[in-house]
Amino acid sequence: MPDQTRIGFIGLGIMGRPMARNLLKAGYPVIVWNRSRPGIEALTADGATEAVSPRDAAEQSDVVVTMVGDHTDVEQVTLGKDGIIEAARLGLVHVDMSTISPDVTRRIAAELDEAGMEMLDAPVSGGEPGAINAALSIMVGGKEDVFERCRPIFETLGKTVVFCGPSGSGQVVKLCNQVVGALNNLAVSEAITLCTSSGVDPRKMLEAVGAGAAASWMVTNLGPKMLDQDFRAGFKVEHQLKDLRYALETASGADVNLPGTELTQRAFAALTDRGLGAEGTQALIKFVRG
Amino acid sequence: MPDQTRIGFIGLGIMGRPMARNLLKAGYPVIVWNRSRPGIEALTADGATEAVSPRDAAEQSDVVVTMVGDHTDVEQVTLGKDGIIEAARLGLVHVDMSTISPDVTRRIAAELDEAGMEMLDAPVSGGEPGAINAALSIMVGGKEDVFERCRPIFETLGKTVVFCGPSGSGQVVKLCNQVVGALNNLAVSEAITLCTSSGVDPRKMLEAVGAGAAASWMVTNLGPKMLDQDFRAGFKVEHQLKDLRYALETASGADVNLPGTELTQRAFAALTDRGLGAEGTQALIKFVRG
Repeated sequence: MPDQTRIGFIGLGIMGRPMARNLLKAGYPVIVWNRSRPGIEALTADGATEAVSPRDAAEQSDVVVTMVGDHTDVEQVTLGKDGIIEAARLGLVHVDMSTISPDVTRRIAAELDEAGMEMLDAPVSGGEPGAINAALSIMVGGKEDVFERCRPIFETLGKTVVFCGPSGSGQVVKLCNQVVGALNNLAVSEAITLCTSSGVDPRKMLEAVGAGAAASWMVTNLGPKMLDQDFRAGFKVEHQLKDLRYALETASGADVNLPGTELTQRAFAALTDRGLGAEGTQALIKFVRG
Repeated sequence: MPDQTRIGFIGLGIMGRPMARNLLKAGYPVIVWNRSRPGIEALTADGATEAVSPRDAAEQSDVVVTMVGDHTDVEQVTLGKDGIIEAARLGLVHVDMSTISPDVTRRIAAELDEAGMEMLDAPVSGGEPGAINAALSIMVGGKEDVFERCRPIFETLGKTVVFCGPSGSGQVVKLCNQVVGALNNLAVSEAITLCTSSGVDPRKMLEAVGAGAAASWMVTNLGPKMLDQDFRAGFKVEHQLKDLRYALETASGADVNLPGTELTQRAFAALTDRGLGAEGTQALIKFVRG
């Protein structure tokens, strides 16, 4: 018999939609809520139940997952009017899989804790293909026993599930992930620019570079998109910019300088200023090309 | 019967030694020369023949490989007194697997061509483990028919062999590889610094980050060395610095700006100024920490 833990799922965008679908496929009852209709209709067609508010989703669930855009969205659906907190009861768990700052996460977790609920921060990496193929890397912060209770859910959504430490630790690790991803992306952008301007076939370059000590997910996955001029968003420039700002705020709070992260932050800000905020992060090559 | 192509091998350092050993293991007759004794003694103990000069190695070989430090070393063993060019004869091939600038490569190739010889540039990536395990990525420039003749040798040394185009193309691709590797390394250095300063276990971070969209060879291979404070050289800071200078010269010649590469070049220069040029490139974390 499949696990009958009832899962609320709030936020059915590029990432949330395939994730909720994977929970349904695994046999979980899934109760969905989304700001706009198309996400809800896609999931109810697959067998999900529609809720009329985040509170309603939480009332019908044992675990409520949120996968939304930024910290104001998380605060709204969690602490706002008709938010999850209004359904607070002992044992109810809120799992926030969005990427927000560790400080905001800890503040929300403290409010939910006062209301008698549990909260885990569980941001993910692996992009849209990782969400579709249930191959995400999931980095979790919170209480370890709550994490263990939710582990089967995480293992349904991802391939690598890492408990990182107390509340906010998942978000810290996710910011580290974004720091690495942005610099790896800049690396591919500069290499393609150098290769092309030197008259050498950049596809040969990606093949060779992707097989040695400079191999990365970004070389293999974003490199070909850059060459194909395919700038559709898997992960948007404006979201990358937001995450890098969180990373730099966190670094600054810890009195640490991250010169490479500052450079990528300026680069994604410049792209956003050029009106490219909704493109995929592979648009970084347009910054290098000038 | 094993391939009886006689291979001269010049330069028996961290990379050259295991590469020459893999050629011996595959059954090739190998004739070695090195600037210092320990490399020669290690290889003759394994069955290689000792030559008294690069010229002597070339005279006894069909293909002469060089794997040396920088372009002055390549010029010395190729065009200098008792150099390979003094053994020039039709059909003799010089394969330079060192990393030097594309311009210098093309100049050496032109001189060898005038002397009736062939030359391929075939720099590698994959570091010491790649050399030991014959898992290198090899990027080759030169004439395609000469490349095809030498392919079995490359396939003995590496797992990925990519023909990149005319003379110098292998070096262009290798510079791209170095650009990517240096930025991926900076990415890991900044992520570990951010994670540690935020009070989260960086080993958890490497595990999670290494499994998602920020995965890279550098996260998996250099990250743990940084945490273990193991700064022994697989690839030296001073060699990385040299390669980044070649990359920036090549970019500048093509009127291209590479801001990330400029940053990593300054970082490795700062480490060299601090007397850390002989450490492994994972010492980059010392630059970020300050």
